[in-house]
Amino acid sequence: MGSIERVKQNAARLVKMHEAGDQVVAVVSAMGSSTDDLLGIAAQVNDNPPKRELDMLVSTGEQVSMSILAMAIEALGVKAVSFTGGQAGIVTDTVHSKAKIREVKASRIRRALSQGAIAIVAGFQGVTRDGEITTLGRGGSDTTAVAVAAGLGADVCEIYTDVDGVYTADPRACPHARKLDSLSYEEMLELSAAGSGVLQMRSVEFARNYKVVIHCRSAFSDEPGTLIKEVDDEMESAIISGIAYDSSEAKVTIRGVPDTVGVAARLFTALAGVNANIDMIIQNVSEDGFTDISFTSPKSDLTRVQEVCAKIVGEVGAREFFTDEGIAKVSIVGTGMKSNPGVAARMFGALADADINISLISTSSIRTSVVVKVDQAQQAVRCLHTAFGLDSNSTFEETQLSGEELAKKAAKGR
Amino acid sequence: MGSIERVKQNAARLVKMHEAGDQVVAVVSAMGSSTDDLLGIAAQVNDNPPKRELDMLVSTGEQVSMSILAMAIEALGVKAVSFTGGQAGIVTDTVHSKAKIREVKASRIRRALSQGAIAIVAGFQGVTRDGEITTLGRGGSDTTAVAVAAGLGADVCEIYTDVDGVYTADPRACPHARKLDSLSYEEMLELSAAGSGVLQMRSVEFARNYKVVIHCRSAFSDEPGTLIKEVDDEMESAIISGIAYDSSEAKVTIRGVPDTVGVAARLFTALAGVNANIDMIIQNVSEDGFTDISFTSPKSDLTRVQEVCAKIVGEVGAREFFTDEGIAKVSIVGTGMKSNPGVAARMFGALADADINISLISTSSIRTSVVVKVDQAQQAVRCLHTAFGLDSNSTFEETQLSGEELAKKAAKGR
Repeated sequence: MGSIERVKQNAARLVKMHEAGDQVVAVVSAMGSSTDDLLGIAAQVNDNPPKRELDMLVSTGEQVSMSILAMAIEALGVKAVSFTGGQAGIVTDTVHSKAKIREVKASRIRRALSQGAIAIVAGFQGVTRDGEITTLGRGGSDTTAVAVAAGLGADVCEIYTDVDGVYTADPRACPHARKLDSLSYEEMLELSAAGSGVLQMRSVEFARNYKVVIHCRSAFSDEPGTLIKEVDDEMESAIISGIAYDSSEAKVTIRGVPDTVGVAARLFTALAGVNANIDMIIQNVSEDGFTDISFTSPKSDLTRVQEVCAKIVGEVGAREFFTDEGIAKVSIVGTGMKSNPGVAARMFGALADADINISLISTSSIRTSVVVKVDQAQQAVRCLHTAFGLDSNSTFEETQLSGEELAKKAAKGR
Repeated sequence: MGSIERVKQNAARLVKMHEAGDQVVAVVSAMGSSTDDLLGIAAQVNDNPPKRELDMLVSTGEQVSMSILAMAIEALGVKAVSFTGGQAGIVTDTVHSKAKIREVKASRIRRALSQGAIAIVAGFQGVTRDGEITTLGRGGSDTTAVAVAAGLGADVCEIYTDVDGVYTADPRACPHARKLDSLSYEEMLELSAAGSGVLQMRSVEFARNYKVVIHCRSAFSDEPGTLIKEVDDEMESAIISGIAYDSSEAKVTIRGVPDTVGVAARLFTALAGVNANIDMIIQNVSEDGFTDISFTSPKSDLTRVQEVCAKIVGEVGAREFFTDEGIAKVSIVGTGMKSNPGVAARMFGALADADINISLISTSSIRTSVVVKVDQAQQAVRCLHTAFGLDSNSTFEETQLSGEELAKKAAKGR
């Protein structure tokens, strides 16, 4: 929630839903910069404040916004009752600042709804079984919303964002990108993991586990957005749902690694030891007893990664290592990939046609990712968007290729 | 609690107590203007916000200050655990914004103390048996402190204020005023009721009911302040403990009231009906079947009072009513008054000697109050302060008068 004006708009929107006959529960985040303001105060008294007290402090942000929203709704003549995470029955584990929701005891919310009130729930926070206040960490408010929807068996969990839905690609990179009407949890998860920042993965995972339908839509308009739900037959007709790219990672290559047992384990254990996130890992086939290992890692972790690599190169007798920050990962995601074997081939072919070189490849059952030069990433997104028939002025059928054509393209692409 | 600097000073003070071997529980109020800031936000969305949601909102003020204080203590290397009113076991009734404490279940505070931590408790707030957040209204933080002290059986409840203790009179009005080492609950209550603003009556009443010793002291120095506790023999030696004055009230007089049954009841029932606070009430003896009724009432209630009086004058056939805002109430308070019958006489004598006219008189067992012209109020305080031997350069014994002298003065005073 942003300013007072935003609060009033949200109140009006909720009252409209209520008057349309729906039982409405709203999960709120803190207003504007209030969480950062509170953390700023904490930093003035303690460089490394205890996490329990930080949770005590920042959880007030949602408590302010929920009570203000309740007042704004009451000002419109509709009953509203706000609940802290604890009051709403959001029971978490005891890990302060990164708590996981264990249970939602929604009886108080149910009672408020049955009395004709709009229920407002503080997002991002919960309470342990011992009554300690916890916060859920990144994406916490979305996760609260999904958890409450699951606890209540709600028809839909609407998540309001600053975009109006999930697109086939980032419209800033790809002018022909289309808003998707719906996609599966798995596709949304892969898109999120591949760099699409629309929804936090955590809330989507929660939704998948509890079969909660998410409606991802704009906070600024009443247009329908994108439904994220269990895959059905209709959805399976599209091979590729979306294309994502991510330029926040760097590529690290270690050359001339002796191809003996345990070398890779040693490297990635050491990287885990410094809390470096590792994404794609590729090890080429061995040649003369030596191999190359490449992986990608967030640029923000790169200093730690380089220290570890320098040490490991010396220890295992590898030739050298180097890093490349000028890369981007481009991914195609779609449930239909499972039953359509030529998809990767078509991807590589389209990129080859556009003279875009691929330096790393990794796949999952519904995603194929490639690493390309960062200055070719947006071009790659656009050409893949066209190749897979996602452009708004064409349909998939028009660009459907035969298996033979696919094979040809694939051969050319490699 | 004021600024960040104040928080750090408070942390250092608490750590010092803790290191001296005491188990320490701190009850905090909101920082600086934060409560007013929150009320300001509420006013922007609702002219008349529901009290439940207001309590939700303003209770965050203490939650912020308690967690910040805990962090500041931890920064000094001492364990600290903060508790919301609910977590601290402050159980209240269900009257939002003016809740009364019903019970203090101090087990969580005890556990924190037994683990060597300083416990920090949010003042001003509690929780109903149903888990609703309530606030205690004016003076709430002091009341929380006394209630927690009672619940824990603490040796003393220290209340930090912007003055360094309770004085025999307001030092701004009376330069010879002395800080009192101790006084009884009843004296403190009468002084508070008579206009001395040092402590909220409510917290003193609570302390009296549960025999909690209050140490009223300065937030800005380590000097001892004033103890408020059960009266003992030593304390009874002083006839008058302090002198208070209050210029916030107006005097209302209704003249020529038919002296028939039920007229006064009708007047004060009507005044109660408009929620007007009435303080001193004086009805003179009847003359020719008519009497005069005077009373005092806060100037802030005067408009409502005048409306009621105008109506009642017509209804009961009284002659007229008039109001005087240029008055002040001056009160002497002391437990010793009970066993010293000449006290009121000496008071009236001293005022007569100073040419100060008395327009109303009212008494309780340990207080005598008079109404004088407001521009003579401070002079009245000074001359009474001297007359009762309270000046810092004299002692009570030096000014002790014989019964005969007292009688003489009293005769002169009337």
